[in-house]
Amino acid sequence: MSASYAYLGPEGTFTEVALRRLPEAATRELVPQVSVQSALDAVRDGAAEAAFVPIENSVEGGITTTLDELVAGRPLMIYREVLLSITFALLVRPGTGLDAIRTVTAHPAAQPQVRNWLTARLPDARWESAASNADGARLVQEGRYDAAFAGEFAAARYGLEALETGIHDAENAQTRFVLVGRPARPAAPSGADKTSVVLWQRADHPGGLRDLLGEFSGRGINLMLLQSRPTGAGIGNYCFCIDAEGHIADRRMAEALTGLKRVCPEVRFLGSYPRADIGAADVRPPFAGTSDEEFMAAAEWVARCQDGRF
Amino acid sequence: MSASYAYLGPEGTFTEVALRRLPEAATRELVPQVSVQSALDAVRDGAAEAAFVPIENSVEGGITTTLDELVAGRPLMIYREVLLSITFALLVRPGTGLDAIRTVTAHPAAQPQVRNWLTARLPDARWESAASNADGARLVQEGRYDAAFAGEFAAARYGLEALETGIHDAENAQTRFVLVGRPARPAAPSGADKTSVVLWQRADHPGGLRDLLGEFSGRGINLMLLQSRPTGAGIGNYCFCIDAEGHIADRRMAEALTGLKRVCPEVRFLGSYPRADIGAADVRPPFAGTSDEEFMAAAEWVARCQDGRF
Repeated sequence: MSASYAYLGPEGTFTEVALRRLPEAATRELVPQVSVQSALDAVRDGAAEAAFVPIENSVEGGITTTLDELVAGRPLMIYREVLLSITFALLVRPGTGLDAIRTVTAHPAAQPQVRNWLTARLPDARWESAASNADGARLVQEGRYDAAFAGEFAAARYGLEALETGIHDAENAQTRFVLVGRPARPAAPSGADKTSVVLWQRADHPGGLRDLLGEFSGRGINLMLLQSRPTGAGIGNYCFCIDAEGHIADRRMAEALTGLKRVCPEVRFLGSYPRADIGAADVRPPFAGTSDEEFMAAAEWVARCQDGRF
Repeated sequence: MSASYAYLGPEGTFTEVALRRLPEAATRELVPQVSVQSALDAVRDGAAEAAFVPIENSVEGGITTTLDELVAGRPLMIYREVLLSITFALLVRPGTGLDAIRTVTAHPAAQPQVRNWLTARLPDARWESAASNADGARLVQEGRYDAAFAGEFAAARYGLEALETGIHDAENAQTRFVLVGRPARPAAPSGADKTSVVLWQRADHPGGLRDLLGEFSGRGINLMLLQSRPTGAGIGNYCFCIDAEGHIADRRMAEALTGLKRVCPEVRFLGSYPRADIGAADVRPPFAGTSDEEFMAAAEWVARCQDGRF
């Protein structure tokens, strides 16, 4: 197995910055890929040990390219997640002033994040989309545009300077990235974990989805993400990508997934991995009756009743 | 009020074809707009009576630009929906053969629909994205590209011919469009209706969403769409766009919405309107105990009990 991580390239984008936050990335070769699909295919084909891709964005929601790739094709597993706050810098060639900026560029996904700033500060600048934020910075370096929105870290790489930093329209703008590998035994619980699964519903009936969610809520498991994705079988046919609090090694999660496996035509396990948003110390205690001990004591009680030892 | 309909342009796209399926479109001036946002703003500003925009696609799922525009800003209401099967034709300048095609173009949303066909039939052709499928056809007319994927109807408009028709990777590829206007009393039930709402959850707790869905399922109401959209308050903060079977004039729907209004911090009603997928004759009878008559009889029984007349 190759000791390399594929990631959604090119170099110098937020994805690379997020990937370098993972300690294990320091010992791997990091190989940029042109798309999420090619990054995940590198893992499926064995060319890379794992792939690092964006999966959720606080402005745009679930990143459907990534979700659809995880939902279909050969199974993959999420090993880690990274949360990165997204703020932009306005990068220019050294010496350029704000009043000299006629054209600006960045990846289209940056536009909703900088729209208000542009309207307020550069109302007459013309926007042109770039293939990536890093590519936009390169085009400024080459003189094709006057300024690019990109991460401040991209300035040094392209010989530019940051005229403004901390640009973001929405407060708390964050992107969540995941490290995806081939299926394996999940790491032991860290104390603050989440579990990702994809659920398919049986032919729709009132409460179908509600019944599925009941497998979680009845065991005190909170959901952190529920994103519907079309199955491709026509309008109205969806599967559900779900992130739930907890680890598959927890009794309550194992039992919830057991219940779902019985009632869903298909369930795809996408992994149990440490949460990036909080540490173990901040996890609230399980609701009454949902701890591992209580699950085991209850199972023993039923066994005793079945034996006539109650 | 202007008697015009704004729609997501330009002319000659699937949106215009779908709009012309509505009988009322024949008596309106149809005005193309550059974006979903500008089409809906034309309605909010009173420049147009209604706007016609795509809202759901069986390959890509909910169309987030449209959902986000309906979720935020001044309230709008859905009046009608249209379902259109999407298949592509390969348009070329008259006389061009398949073996002469080096470059192809279309709107990026067309790409997942024609990818397999391209790999099989034109593996060496280079793809370049166009601003719209109609724009791609225009660029072929001008000689910029050799072929464009677009609706067959676009051939005549741009002096092109359809070298192949019926191109689609996914069976049943459909797009759903909606006619959106300012809030008003919804049309009377047609017998086969759906109701669209947006729900916001209180601070998350296990089963929060499940409890909300229970307001529908407990009254025998099936859901046809559930799409989460970020609220902008950071990762993990979502509202839910829901399509439910039935009309707000139905007792069970009115009661479900009453229940949701009590427990959600915010509910946005997006309209009750006829379903495009089936007619009234195909609607299955309500589940036992969920007809208007049964709701009324039950309410009378409780009133009698309260009066001591049971």
